[in-house]
Amino acid sequence: MAQDQLIIFDTTLRDGEQSPGASMTREEKLRIARQLEKMRVDVIEAGFPAASNGDFESVRAVAEIIKDATVAGLCRASDKDISRALEAIKPAKSGRIHTFIATSPIHMEKKLRMTPDEVIVAACNAVRFARNGIDNVEFSCEDAGRSELDFLCRIIEAVIKEGAGTINIPDTVGYNVPEQFAERIHQLRERIPNSDKVVWSVHCHNDLGLAVANSLAAVRAGARQVECTINGLGERAGNAALEEIVMAVRTRQDIFNCDTRIDTTQIVAASKLVSGITGFPVQPNKAIVGANAFAHESGIHQDGVLKHRETYEIMRAEDVGWNTNKLVLGKHSGRTAFKARLQELGIEVDSEQVLNAAFTRFKELADKKHEIFDEDLHALMSEEVTTPEQERFRLLSSRFHSETGELPLAAITMSDNGQEHHAESSGSGPVDAALKAIESVVNSGAELLLYSVNAITTGTDAQGEVTVRLSKGGRVVNGLGADTDIVVASARAYINALNKLLSGQERINPQGDV
Amino acid sequence: MAQDQLIIFDTTLRDGEQSPGASMTREEKLRIARQLEKMRVDVIEAGFPAASNGDFESVRAVAEIIKDATVAGLCRASDKDISRALEAIKPAKSGRIHTFIATSPIHMEKKLRMTPDEVIVAACNAVRFARNGIDNVEFSCEDAGRSELDFLCRIIEAVIKEGAGTINIPDTVGYNVPEQFAERIHQLRERIPNSDKVVWSVHCHNDLGLAVANSLAAVRAGARQVECTINGLGERAGNAALEEIVMAVRTRQDIFNCDTRIDTTQIVAASKLVSGITGFPVQPNKAIVGANAFAHESGIHQDGVLKHRETYEIMRAEDVGWNTNKLVLGKHSGRTAFKARLQELGIEVDSEQVLNAAFTRFKELADKKHEIFDEDLHALMSEEVTTPEQERFRLLSSRFHSETGELPLAAITMSDNGQEHHAESSGSGPVDAALKAIESVVNSGAELLLYSVNAITTGTDAQGEVTVRLSKGGRVVNGLGADTDIVVASARAYINALNKLLSGQERINPQGDV
Repeated sequence: MAQDQLIIFDTTLRDGEQSPGASMTREEKLRIARQLEKMRVDVIEAGFPAASNGDFESVRAVAEIIKDATVAGLCRASDKDISRALEAIKPAKSGRIHTFIATSPIHMEKKLRMTPDEVIVAACNAVRFARNGIDNVEFSCEDAGRSELDFLCRIIEAVIKEGAGTINIPDTVGYNVPEQFAERIHQLRERIPNSDKVVWSVHCHNDLGLAVANSLAAVRAGARQVECTINGLGERAGNAALEEIVMAVRTRQDIFNCDTRIDTTQIVAASKLVSGITGFPVQPNKAIVGANAFAHESGIHQDGVLKHRETYEIMRAEDVGWNTNKLVLGKHSGRTAFKARLQELGIEVDSEQVLNAAFTRFKELADKKHEIFDEDLHALMSEEVTTPEQERFRLLSSRFHSETGELPLAAITMSDNGQEHHAESSGSGPVDAALKAIESVVNSGAELLLYSVNAITTGTDAQGEVTVRLSKGGRVVNGLGADTDIVVASARAYINALNKLLSGQERINPQGDV
Repeated sequence: MAQDQLIIFDTTLRDGEQSPGASMTREEKLRIARQLEKMRVDVIEAGFPAASNGDFESVRAVAEIIKDATVAGLCRASDKDISRALEAIKPAKSGRIHTFIATSPIHMEKKLRMTPDEVIVAACNAVRFARNGIDNVEFSCEDAGRSELDFLCRIIEAVIKEGAGTINIPDTVGYNVPEQFAERIHQLRERIPNSDKVVWSVHCHNDLGLAVANSLAAVRAGARQVECTINGLGERAGNAALEEIVMAVRTRQDIFNCDTRIDTTQIVAASKLVSGITGFPVQPNKAIVGANAFAHESGIHQDGVLKHRETYEIMRAEDVGWNTNKLVLGKHSGRTAFKARLQELGIEVDSEQVLNAAFTRFKELADKKHEIFDEDLHALMSEEVTTPEQERFRLLSSRFHSETGELPLAAITMSDNGQEHHAESSGSGPVDAALKAIESVVNSGAELLLYSVNAITTGTDAQGEVTVRLSKGGRVVNGLGADTDIVVASARAYINALNKLLSGQERINPQGDV
């Protein structure tokens, strides 16, 4: 029996990136987009082109490289936004315009300051304008979860007539519960005369912990597209987690009469990539992608597992890409093997120069660390995505000393546009001292919002990956640094963040919605 | 109109503790129990007394100090387990026996190797035996989510006749979806003749991300007790998160005709306490207790929030205890102020000696760090909960040196049962060198499973809190260390873990179930 396809619309690069502190550079967005394509996501929402030049460039860059997924750009219901988005997604093999307007009484009155009839006119104009530029148009009713049903029926019927092919019902503030939300989808599909002409989509937020449940309830009520993000990334408590949606539908094929195209074995890699780039850790008890998601401790459970596998397991760890942490390279690996492994990991290297710099770093690491895992390579390349010329600041050498009863000291040598500087500082610890020494050269005046460390692999010679989040003048950037020496990793992360903060490049300043 | 009470049954100390790596000492369990009581949890499941002497002692210690909540002990359906649990909860002002047996075909056949009729007899015997010792008895059907409805009706009717006052329906493997699970609760309540004599309870696991949704659907179907944990801690993907259950019911009073007694302003403190003790981070996009849960970045959203608060807010951050990070102490604070603040934080100090040691550490910290926050005190006391005499190993002094092009070096002086040892080592980084130097004295042979760092507060002089997880001979322990110097914090954490691993004290070895 032919089964419906459930379309997976990933918005990690748009709604996910709106999380405070999760802003990504163009290069980081490209790395994630490549992984999403590899995972066989159907639609990649790459950004909000009208929000800033940086966002425009990112969407355009994603549109240029992605071949196996539709690339969507978000826009308000205005000709100007839509024109900009059309331009951004133009290079895409398959592009989509995703336009939205608020439909709840509170939003129409307090935010838009428009009457319901004015909102319908604006929505229809937007969809018509978009359809003049492209066939694939999605329309979203912002705050649909709190909108009046009669009004939703009116506006949706109207935009379907204008040619919207996908109708998205977001629970923008995460206020719904599953049975209510499913009933809403059911009612809309029943009452709108032309409802069978479109794909119904949902976009749920997790403020009450119900984003996944609301999405799945909607699927059972006939929705055939779910908007979601890797790790449930997103503003506030985030969006519905892609991995949970996909695995619930896959695991419960007895009750869902649809399935996704997703290659689930790519899920853990995608989760680690997004966590690494944003610096947002995944808690161990996170479903599917948490470190403990497939781990058992209880004696009784272990006994049960031994006696019969299905007693406690409803999914297999390998189905979502666990246990694939492969030892790939060591100190004797050559340049060709290194390059080949990067390609297998989907890490694109723009030039020979970048590759050479990365290979040098790889050899340095291999001298210090016995086994080099894929995670190590991801970390290594996170720092090498900007070519040397683009980097204003570079750490040349460092020395740290701390001793009980004395103030920790750091001495660093760094370059600023090629000019060498030396600085020393004391601090409350060696990391504090290192950062103060760097600041004494750069004088950025940036505020440190977050400092976090992850051990990339296990063992005492594990690399530490440090994320530093800096803020200045309303801009927030993340810096990453990895090294077997945690103080060196910290200094590198700080310099990486300063390069982002103080480079000329216009920043991506997301201000999307839905 | 009188409204039903929804009973909150917290199992952080039992099912939560079963997460690999989340094992807690007796003292840590007491600190969490005190916070649960302060938050007005109704039932605290303190452990599984028959699992080990350590677990027995922990349950007994919790039973001794908790006055405003019922203290429950888990036991299999056997007289031996139940006797042990009765003894453990004896000191409680209000105690409960929670006994369980598996009721799904797969569990009865493969794990218990009993016929359904034998299972009913065992369940009735257990409840009868428990009721001879105590009035308050809860019965759980393990893997009820996959049990046959007719059989559940038979066994539950029988145990209600024997005097069980609470019937718990767990979804042990996290396989259910909300409408199915709610329908199950509805059917059981409809079909079991004496169902009105008991409180119906649910216990959901989060393997598909649906634990909270399933619990809430069951509440709408008449369940009046929810079993849950702080931060959703628990085996694999964890249990239903207490904070999400409580806030969903509180926020959606329009659809739930019940409410909890919980003081929601204690939620964030409880979350931080559990995260700190287990070393399990809370991801920023976690609902309610994630650092971003109430943070907005999008320009459009901010505009909306400014124009009308309710546009995007369905809860207030202060209602769950955010924004209460108070500057409390500085370097001029005295012993009395220090002691008073500990009391306000619910941190009990067992002896003057412990207080004195803690105060010395506090003064040392205040010399290095300008502002001392509540989080700093929590970290400080995490290390001081064992009195000096109980500690076999102590770090006396340390020296670290690292420099570009040279191997990082660590020199440490430590005591083992009062005897001083000195050691030096190089390593791939200063942390690696420090741990190797300590190992060269102790020769524990333990395996390092996890090394993680959290900045406790923000700012460059923030303390780093390091969690080290060691494993040896099947035992897993967490060590915590905090210091403004991350290398010192790492050495402290390692020594703290070694003290737990190598002290004579029998370890809590949880093997509960449900």
